[in-house]
Amino acid sequence: MSKIMRYSRDYKKKDTIITVKNVKIGGKFFAIAAGPCAVENRDQYFETAIAVKKSGANLIRGSAYKPRTSPYSFQGLGQEALTIIRDLGEELKIPTITEVMDPRDVKTTSQHADILQVGARNMQNFELLKELAKINNPIILKRGMSATIEEWLNSAEYLMTEGNENIILCERGIRTFETITRNTLDLSIIPLIKMRTHLPIIVDPSHATGNRELITPACKAAIASNSDGLIIEVHQNPEVAMSDGPQSLDIAQFSELINQIKPILEVERKIITGTTLNLSEIRHQISCVDEDIIDLLATRMSLVPSLIEFKRENQIPIYQPEREKEILTKYANLAQKYTLNPALVQKIFDLIITEMRELQKKERV
Amino acid sequence: MSKIMRYSRDYKKKDTIITVKNVKIGGKFFAIAAGPCAVENRDQYFETAIAVKKSGANLIRGSAYKPRTSPYSFQGLGQEALTIIRDLGEELKIPTITEVMDPRDVKTTSQHADILQVGARNMQNFELLKELAKINNPIILKRGMSATIEEWLNSAEYLMTEGNENIILCERGIRTFETITRNTLDLSIIPLIKMRTHLPIIVDPSHATGNRELITPACKAAIASNSDGLIIEVHQNPEVAMSDGPQSLDIAQFSELINQIKPILEVERKIITGTTLNLSEIRHQISCVDEDIIDLLATRMSLVPSLIEFKRENQIPIYQPEREKEILTKYANLAQKYTLNPALVQKIFDLIITEMRELQKKERV
Amino acid sequence: MSKIMRYSRDYKKKDTIITVKNVKIGGKFFAIAAGPCAVENRDQYFETAIAVKKSGANLIRGSAYKPRTSPYSFQGLGQEALTIIRDLGEELKIPTITEVMDPRDVKTTSQHADILQVGARNMQNFELLKELAKINNPIILKRGMSATIEEWLNSAEYLMTEGNENIILCERGIRTFETITRNTLDLSIIPLIKMRTHLPIIVDPSHATGNRELITPACKAAIASNSDGLIIEVHQNPEVAMSDGPQSLDIAQFSELINQIKPILEVERKIITGTTLNLSEIRHQISCVDEDIIDLLATRMSLVPSLIEFKRENQIPIYQPEREKEILTKYANLAQKYTLNPALVQKIFDLIITEMRELQKKERV
Amino acid sequence: MSKIMRYSRDYKKKDTIITVKNVKIGGKFFAIAAGPCAVENRDQYFETAIAVKKSGANLIRGSAYKPRTSPYSFQGLGQEALTIIRDLGEELKIPTITEVMDPRDVKTTSQHADILQVGARNMQNFELLKELAKINNPIILKRGMSATIEEWLNSAEYLMTEGNENIILCERGIRTFETITRNTLDLSIIPLIKMRTHLPIIVDPSHATGNRELITPACKAAIASNSDGLIIEVHQNPEVAMSDGPQSLDIAQFSELINQIKPILEVERKIITGTTLNLSEIRHQISCVDEDIIDLLATRMSLVPSLIEFKRENQIPIYQPEREKEILTKYANLAQKYTLNPALVQKIFDLIITEMRELQKKERV
Repeated sequence: MSKIMRYSRDYKKKDTIITVKNVKIGGKFFAIAAGPCAVENRDQYFETAIAVKKSGANLIRGSAYKPRTSPYSFQGLGQEALTIIRDLGEELKIPTITEVMDPRDVKTTSQHADILQVGARNMQNFELLKELAKINNPIILKRGMSATIEEWLNSAEYLMTEGNENIILCERGIRTFETITRNTLDLSIIPLIKMRTHLPIIVDPSHATGNRELITPACKAAIASNSDGLIIEVHQNPEVAMSDGPQSLDIAQFSELINQIKPILEVERKIITGTTLNLSEIRHQISCVDEDIIDLLATRMSLVPSLIEFKRENQIPIYQPEREKEILTKYANLAQKYTLNPALVQKIFDLIITEMRELQKKERV
Repeated sequence: MSKIMRYSRDYKKKDTIITVKNVKIGGKFFAIAAGPCAVENRDQYFETAIAVKKSGANLIRGSAYKPRTSPYSFQGLGQEALTIIRDLGEELKIPTITEVMDPRDVKTTSQHADILQVGARNMQNFELLKELAKINNPIILKRGMSATIEEWLNSAEYLMTEGNENIILCERGIRTFETITRNTLDLSIIPLIKMRTHLPIIVDPSHATGNRELITPACKAAIASNSDGLIIEVHQNPEVAMSDGPQSLDIAQFSELINQIKPILEVERKIITGTTLNLSEIRHQISCVDEDIIDLLATRMSLVPSLIEFKRENQIPIYQPEREKEILTKYANLAQKYTLNPALVQKIFDLIITEMRELQKKERV
Repeated sequence: MSKIMRYSRDYKKKDTIITVKNVKIGGKFFAIAAGPCAVENRDQYFETAIAVKKSGANLIRGSAYKPRTSPYSFQGLGQEALTIIRDLGEELKIPTITEVMDPRDVKTTSQHADILQVGARNMQNFELLKELAKINNPIILKRGMSATIEEWLNSAEYLMTEGNENIILCERGIRTFETITRNTLDLSIIPLIKMRTHLPIIVDPSHATGNRELITPACKAAIASNSDGLIIEVHQNPEVAMSDGPQSLDIAQFSELINQIKPILEVERKIITGTTLNLSEIRHQISCVDEDIIDLLATRMSLVPSLIEFKRENQIPIYQPEREKEILTKYANLAQKYTLNPALVQKIFDLIITEMRELQKKERV
Repeated sequence: MSKIMRYSRDYKKKDTIITVKNVKIGGKFFAIAAGPCAVENRDQYFETAIAVKKSGANLIRGSAYKPRTSPYSFQGLGQEALTIIRDLGEELKIPTITEVMDPRDVKTTSQHADILQVGARNMQNFELLKELAKINNPIILKRGMSATIEEWLNSAEYLMTEGNENIILCERGIRTFETITRNTLDLSIIPLIKMRTHLPIIVDPSHATGNRELITPACKAAIASNSDGLIIEVHQNPEVAMSDGPQSLDIAQFSELINQIKPILEVERKIITGTTLNLSEIRHQISCVDEDIIDLLATRMSLVPSLIEFKRENQIPIYQPEREKEILTKYANLAQKYTLNPALVQKIFDLIITEMRELQKKERV
């Protein structure tokens, strides 16, 4: 097909970074979603949410509607749960995630939760996807149990047809002959996904493995595979959970998981927003950003010899006051778009440009 | 779970036989559904339907709504197609099948087509299933691409929760590592399905193989595996079909397919209703039924020695006029339920009972 | 690769028909191999073999070497079993099949059994295949548990590199997510295999399903899918079998299976050689061949109008005595190759040619 | 089965640590094997080996015998390559890995290479496994393309039946419906493997992904999943490689890979032996070990309250000179087994015991 797909890098080169409340997802920004499988009642949901937020989660999951294999299993609290989710989102000022299964529920759900989730069983429920394309909330699109990458990205395209670019892919394991884990977590495709699409991709180790004991190493592997986030089932008392108990962590286990993954997050230079960090964590994240700034400065300076050569051959003077002024104005405008102080940006680039001009003079000799 | 599932043999021992217009599906009754992937316009649908009916199809398929991997592919004519389908069903007096994908379309669709179909991608679209549970039309439930038997039957249960027993399962191939066929047709599970459920199961070789050349042997194998029907994509001109062209048969190929499968249908003693048969086919089907009647008579007579022994040990006389009368009355009532002439049934059983009584006297000596 | 593969239809257009003792496999000739998983002792093997031969098997299976998942399971009797197999083959004059796993055992095994089998686990044991390429016995090559068609045919090519064309492919189920059957029998690929290769392909329903109850419908489906044979595990007492008990039929069940598949074999016009048939079965097989002869005669006669037109346009006389004589001589030679009476063949073709000449005269007018 | 399997944690509780030349594999010790798919000639193999060793590999891979899908592809240099491998192993003092496919080649191969490898296609080539059980070299056992964990561990058991415990498992991807990567790397099973067996497990990202671009993230994920090593295909000129070119790294890419994985190895506190490290790397590894020693000391001291309580209740004196002497003697013996200086060990434990005794006195008060 010659049509350029909206999910593709041909359509948008840079990583999509999604902002929801004070949390960012994509690029350098890593998401840690946690919470119960289902919202069972107000206390259970609030208690779990407060605890996982304290441990380091920056998104809260919890379903009002549950897709269940058997019609006789607990199907979720429905509208009652939506109200609880909305209240929590407002009280804790943390973004909430909830699943939607029926096109008729899309609008109401989008008014109660921040991020909507499409489950694996609904990845090709095209009528649901078309309805979701009409709203603007970020959407998590789980991979179908036997969906190819091609099919998955096409389903993302359904969500984007009316302009919403805030789509988050979620790998949650595929069906294979190996049944010792509930599904087979397919991490090798993450770098392939990144080549093809600008959309962020997160990993769900709870549904992938179906086994509490396998979640920590799966999370570490997911981070090391360059994913953009995790979504983990946590229940204050997994023994009595109304669904997915065996794969849910309790609150202490979740806290320990966060400790285990932090060093890998540091290695991968990921930044976690919207959560309370301690001073040394904040300093580390700052220094990660600083190092990247310095790296880019070095890249900029490395272009000096090419500049010299070009200007010499084309007999262009090193100092071009008009050009420099033009650049500074342009960056001041850009700064405003990013809500940065334009004066600061102008001062910094004045220094950079001056340095680069001096280098050209020195090396030209 | 201790709950008895409605799909199970524990709930209902005998095969479900579905009647729609003058066609029966299940038990001895074999269904041959054919028609285009999508209703593209009135002429194309009518032309194909008339031709496949003439060749031997007793159900007409054709979609108004199409689940398409890409949002930019042809999505079906929608309501316009439903009207065409309703008109054809009325004019040709043949049952029609059409897919439904959105819970909001269920009611209207059920008023325009005879049989509704749930596609593989929607097998676990539980909100759709719940909506379908409210109508009474027969429903074809396709197996999901990587659905286990357990999950499939649970989805059938969703459809049956409000009392509709007219559910038809449809095997359409599963996803495996082997991609030389589009899917892998899983015929060995048919006898397992039959052990677990009273519901009929049909086979879709078009989507299973994705390749016109493989359809005839797959159909023959499906019949030999004891399935209850076939659903086949036929287009009057596959080259210009708006979807699924490569796997569609043209009309001559469908006619040839029917010729190829007829001998296997005869071996399996299947009866096709609602279609024009030639005299020798009708005679064959009659003789199949007759042979089964004779077989049951022999089974009945083989019980004579046990009867003799029991009555002797318990000193019960061979002739029991009260018991005989009771049986005849009971069968006369049963006859009425089946809309058979009660007098005929009474006469036949009077003959049988008399014969059996005489045999007891003779052998007792 | 531009090399023409020996397995391909490009290398050899007509179906390979393998002859071993008085049994033929391939083309119209259908093989029914039966016998125990392993040769456990002389009595068990002889007893089972005699019984299945009487029921209609024309090949006897039974392993001397068993590939077992655990090193602590029964590994087969080895050389002792080979001697028993050789004795049975001589006494019953029936071809025997046995598995070989070690390149060092190939030569000895080839001297004790008629047909050697490569198991699914050894399909890509290339050193074994290379050793097998040196012998001339027919070889059954089972498909690996997750082997593609391409890989399977390449392994067949290994066996054929030194000229042996007597290779029999055997589909035995593939590994998929569905574990309710031990493997998923992949019958749709049989017509694809037939398009690509001249080699016969048989089906093993015992290993494919791992469940005695599923074997009969799987056998019927295999025949209807145009396979060339079956290989079935039978034990005189499955309860005490040293391996594969749950999937083995007992002797009565095997006999019943043969009754069930015979009508499908008749529909598919398959001929079973090397086994005692009753008069009506023989007559049926004769009439199948006769009908095919008549069909070919009709095809020949249908060419008359083209002949007339061609000869008229090119002004060639209808009667061409030189050409007729040449044909008759050629066919007499061909007859000798097939060990047919050349005089008979000449007489038949003299009649045919005369008829065709007369038809040309009549229609030309 | 009630038999205790040699691979199981019931048989041996602690991680097996394999020592070959000056390299250790298992427990804290991480292996990095690299080298060409096949030994094509002396120069190519030596050049690649020297380069990867310099970059940080501590094992050299390279095949003399190649399992190839087609009989017409390059099959390896055979004995000529074995000689080259032996020479390299001696000259570079680095352990070498090579594949063996034929039971007849096991003995010779074991005399030329340090570690023997069983390929995925031969995982259930039981005759090969039985022959390998007779030698003492470490053996890498790759997982079959569709092998369950159970089958894989049973094949490891075959290798261990005669006492060899130096078995290394190797995950190399499984066959699934997803063909965008050549296989699906199944990392979630690594923690499960670790629960069941004491054997080390390494990961082959080259065969798993079949794609050079995916190797680095797969390696990082493998380390984060707690694997014990990597085996990577490297060729000095992948463009002209006689096999597996598209998945081979060139030397610069391998060197960059090592840089990428080092931070994750540090987080996971892995130690790489037999390779030249720079001072800061050595210091880091030393400090990892030191921290673990300190951690164990703290664990030992934390037992003081229990000791006090027990001794008080049972009226045992805190100071038990006989017991202390006994312990010191026992540890001196153990030290000798590990080739440690017994005096050093005695001195250390004298300090520890004294400290613990003092603590008991202090806390008792």
